[in-house]
Amino acid sequence: MLITPGPLLKKINSPADLKKLDQAQLVQLCEELRHFIIDNVSVYGGHFGASLGVVELTVALHYVFNTPYDQLVWDVGHQAYGHKILTGRKDAFHTNRMYGGISGFPKRKESEYDTFGVGHSSTSVSAALGMAVASKYLGLTDKQHIAVIGDGALTGGMAFEGLNHAGVSDTNILIILNDNCMSIDPNVGALKDYLTDITTSKTYNKLKDDVWNMLGKFSHFGKNAQEIVSKIENSIKSALLSQSNLFESLNLRYFGPVDGHDVNHLTSVLNDLKNIKGPKILHCVTVKGKGYGPSEKGNATTWHAPGVFDKITGEIYKKVHEKPQPPKYQDVFGHTLVELAKANDKIVGITPAMPSGSSMNIMMKEMPDRAFDVGIAEQHAVTFSAGLATQGLIPFCNIYSSFMQRAYDQVIHDVCIQDLPVNFCLDRAGFAGADGPTHHGAYDIAYFRCIPNMIVSAPMNEQELRNLMYTASKPRKGQAFSIRYPRGQGVMPEWRTPFEEIEIGTGRKLRNGDDVAILTVGHVGNYAVDVCEKLEQQNIKVAHFDMRFVKPIDEKLLHEVFSKYSKIITVEDGCVEGGFGSAVLEFMADHNYSADLKRLGIPDAVIEHGEQIELQHEAGFDPENIEKAVREMLKAVKHV
Amino acid sequence: MLITPGPLLKKINSPADLKKLDQAQLVQLCEELRHFIIDNVSVYGGHFGASLGVVELTVALHYVFNTPYDQLVWDVGHQAYGHKILTGRKDAFHTNRMYGGISGFPKRKESEYDTFGVGHSSTSVSAALGMAVASKYLGLTDKQHIAVIGDGALTGGMAFEGLNHAGVSDTNILIILNDNCMSIDPNVGALKDYLTDITTSKTYNKLKDDVWNMLGKFSHFGKNAQEIVSKIENSIKSALLSQSNLFESLNLRYFGPVDGHDVNHLTSVLNDLKNIKGPKILHCVTVKGKGYGPSEKGNATTWHAPGVFDKITGEIYKKVHEKPQPPKYQDVFGHTLVELAKANDKIVGITPAMPSGSSMNIMMKEMPDRAFDVGIAEQHAVTFSAGLATQGLIPFCNIYSSFMQRAYDQVIHDVCIQDLPVNFCLDRAGFAGADGPTHHGAYDIAYFRCIPNMIVSAPMNEQELRNLMYTASKPRKGQAFSIRYPRGQGVMPEWRTPFEEIEIGTGRKLRNGDDVAILTVGHVGNYAVDVCEKLEQQNIKVAHFDMRFVKPIDEKLLHEVFSKYSKIITVEDGCVEGGFGSAVLEFMADHNYSADLKRLGIPDAVIEHGEQIELQHEAGFDPENIEKAVREMLKAVKHV
Repeated sequence: MLITPGPLLKKINSPADLKKLDQAQLVQLCEELRHFIIDNVSVYGGHFGASLGVVELTVALHYVFNTPYDQLVWDVGHQAYGHKILTGRKDAFHTNRMYGGISGFPKRKESEYDTFGVGHSSTSVSAALGMAVASKYLGLTDKQHIAVIGDGALTGGMAFEGLNHAGVSDTNILIILNDNCMSIDPNVGALKDYLTDITTSKTYNKLKDDVWNMLGKFSHFGKNAQEIVSKIENSIKSALLSQSNLFESLNLRYFGPVDGHDVNHLTSVLNDLKNIKGPKILHCVTVKGKGYGPSEKGNATTWHAPGVFDKITGEIYKKVHEKPQPPKYQDVFGHTLVELAKANDKIVGITPAMPSGSSMNIMMKEMPDRAFDVGIAEQHAVTFSAGLATQGLIPFCNIYSSFMQRAYDQVIHDVCIQDLPVNFCLDRAGFAGADGPTHHGAYDIAYFRCIPNMIVSAPMNEQELRNLMYTASKPRKGQAFSIRYPRGQGVMPEWRTPFEEIEIGTGRKLRNGDDVAILTVGHVGNYAVDVCEKLEQQNIKVAHFDMRFVKPIDEKLLHEVFSKYSKIITVEDGCVEGGFGSAVLEFMADHNYSADLKRLGIPDAVIEHGEQIELQHEAGFDPENIEKAVREMLKAVKHV
Repeated sequence: MLITPGPLLKKINSPADLKKLDQAQLVQLCEELRHFIIDNVSVYGGHFGASLGVVELTVALHYVFNTPYDQLVWDVGHQAYGHKILTGRKDAFHTNRMYGGISGFPKRKESEYDTFGVGHSSTSVSAALGMAVASKYLGLTDKQHIAVIGDGALTGGMAFEGLNHAGVSDTNILIILNDNCMSIDPNVGALKDYLTDITTSKTYNKLKDDVWNMLGKFSHFGKNAQEIVSKIENSIKSALLSQSNLFESLNLRYFGPVDGHDVNHLTSVLNDLKNIKGPKILHCVTVKGKGYGPSEKGNATTWHAPGVFDKITGEIYKKVHEKPQPPKYQDVFGHTLVELAKANDKIVGITPAMPSGSSMNIMMKEMPDRAFDVGIAEQHAVTFSAGLATQGLIPFCNIYSSFMQRAYDQVIHDVCIQDLPVNFCLDRAGFAGADGPTHHGAYDIAYFRCIPNMIVSAPMNEQELRNLMYTASKPRKGQAFSIRYPRGQGVMPEWRTPFEEIEIGTGRKLRNGDDVAILTVGHVGNYAVDVCEKLEQQNIKVAHFDMRFVKPIDEKLLHEVFSKYSKIITVEDGCVEGGFGSAVLEFMADHNYSADLKRLGIPDAVIEHGEQIELQHEAGFDPENIEKAVREMLKAVKHV
């Protein structure tokens, strides 16, 4: 289905075309751009609410600034659909997030207008400041550098680090605060309350009331007093709104708040700001999902990335299945955590701004005093969990694998070196799919297994996930316990199995074989099961071991493997450099075994976006490639 | 030499003893504690200025609060000497930072008073908040939780994440801001200026002047006006100092600033704060190095950790050597960077708050517009560098190996996925020495080599460091380039060698052998040289290859190695799980070679503090252990 852009949008293939419009036409263009996004996302899926919220801002920015010479950096980037459509990618937009298509996030390789690749949050101030400092050094005093950052992203500490530096930088940096009180879920924390305070002028109004109340006491002073108070009120207002504003505290000139949906006013404000030197911030109030009834009035979290929907009715389509489907690993996590927590009052849950994505929201709803959304703040989430553990609580801290990279030092320094028993559930481990390389959970096995006092595990299915979580909830002296699992469905429609404790560091032999043994960890073990069954029908008997733990690795089982098999294939949904396969190699070398060993997993390259199975095929560890590896290994002759 | 404590301090073996003192005796106790620290550090070395700056605060905290029931968390922890001395470690204090002695930082294993292990900065708010939330959940409403954090540490974004959560937490958390305008080097950034503004009441005074100026215009209103203005001034003051204060913006009740060296006032303020519920911050102004003339009046950076010195004269002892010594790798980095930058105006330097430690201060002095100290903000440092690189500059971002853990996601997400040519110099790679496990650079080879678009290298000596930096400064299309080197001296007194470009991914054959080959990376290659020479005198010929690059690894050289040698030892000053040795194993497996391979390096354990060589001996890769490994391998028989 081809989506037709409106008459103005049709002619815009770059910001140069946009600049040919009269300012009076911008309202119509915004309307067309908004509908083009709605039409596309309703049919092809993708992120939704965020881009609708910045339609006017996007148009105004490209209308006023000289992109791509001026550097425009979008924080996170799922709000950049309008930006992509206006900068030459309108005709490719229906390929958004598809294998081989354009990326759902700004990406340097894709366009010169995408000045900085994003996906994770809170990077835009630092990146734009680097650009601005470079321009200053290079003498490009006319060049503008704009970071567009949401109020959710602003809770990430990195953004604060950037602001602290920007404030003393004397550069042409403009930070646009896109304040919609949301990240994917509603934003949390003291900063959010503060921003609401500013936009509603709460503090100012309170102070004004105080002054008028005081004035009551001075009523005998008469008219003079009123005049003085009125003048002084203005001093107070300016003091509150400028000198003592949080951003002014950091030496950033503060402008706003302005209505982020008034494109004409935005255009004139941005034109003014262009001529004001130095670091500055424009506070823009927007509505996530603006301009489309169901998303503007409905649940903003649902409409963050709703999937395919009926544009007219706002009904979000759900796949209908004939037979019962396996649950998502996410839901198994969410429900299992509540089950465990009901039986053990020491268990608490922590998520950095991913309550719905991780299904921590189930516990937050049932046990609001025991489950914490700490905002986009992975570093804090981990060390906060460590603090909870010091008091004898049992924290389950759920962080996506690629976001855990944000808290790597905290895992080492605040948990593992101190040998604290914190449990980490790493969601989105392995290929994330359509979100692409920024979100692939490719490295966690490698970056976790090198840390002492860290248990590294991955369940092959729902039952295993439940049992690993149950095991992690049992008292132990120290050690962090990590459990990684992928985005999406498992394999067991009947998943509510009774809990069984697993001995830490033990794997499972699933099948004996003749020559070749496949060693897997995690969900990809199911691929090996299929391959082994298929080959067995051809009388090729291949052994299969679900190792379950990468660390401590099951040495007893590996002795059995290396004693019996001389051809071994390891399969993991993670990077092959330093990953699970390398752990097996280390065992082999340490125990003087010798075998042909082939490691399948994510190769040493940036793998782009697409369906998980498409990416696994490209990477060479989907069922087809596992089978191929077995057949090649059967043919191979060892050269010594 | 035994250091004798003063008469009051002598009797204090725990805070219970401290509480027996009259408040009137606290001033004397502070004096004695200060001198005990000066006496010890002057003789045994260690951190200095930070602990002197918090003597009064330390005494007041333990006098007022019920430690260890109340939870006291020191940020960074090099200011906790007084705390250690008052909490039962006075008699062990002369073993501070020595192998087998007490740690220079708070450490949970060492004492129940050390509620949280530290070393890195900005973790205290998150940890204390975790404790406070746990206490609230457990119903311990009387329990207090105190985080002591410096103004330098407050620039780390993680602290902001913690404040943002603390502000909405409704817990008994007291954050004490120890404001001395310093981290190790002078603090930088907008926040520092803001704190100075508060402590000097600059904004308030300016506003007051404004009001009085305005009043001038109202002089015809007479006495009444003065009275009104005076009342309204108070409103403004309270508005500025409370409702609109940066910390109050984050919903933390703000108290202060108070003099951090008035122990009696501190005691009474802390007593008051104990009874105020909810999250709060006490702003304490202190002087780093307080109470010892040379450190109070001299250079605070010099006196951060001065080494051994003459207590009377303040003269810092320097070792005198008969013959010329090799330089520190740090100084080679600092001078070489300036040399390169003089020849190439695209080169810029970045350090997160370590100008003197990394020797970036040399460039900051010579080229202030091209070298940036961004504060304790590793995440920002990396993404800021990425921003600089997008504009065609050539950034050299210097971060200690263990601090690079703080910016792991930024390296992946903002540099490597985008294939930007940023250069990382990883100082303090390998064992850090007396600073201990929080500072050991143990994991960087493992955590960097799993990332695509990342070059991982380590120089064996000064000349190699210079040539690697020279190579990294040459134009290349993409890829991050990391160069790791240890703390301390190299091996070449004549180190100013001419620059030679190195082909990326090539190692060096240093010596042929008969049976065994040693493969090294980095400075430990010098150990292998010594071992090989020693063994050669006994007619044992051992080959030695300095691989130089862990990634891309020199495959040509490895083919030579595995074709010729069947007994191989790898040596690295980094973790053996997933490290350099594992990269060699991966090559072996991928190319169907078979060999006995022994990996020497940092084992999978938390190695404590001590001299570097002591730790390397314990870990098994000092010269003695390398020799032992060779001899054992010569005896070994392969079992297949």
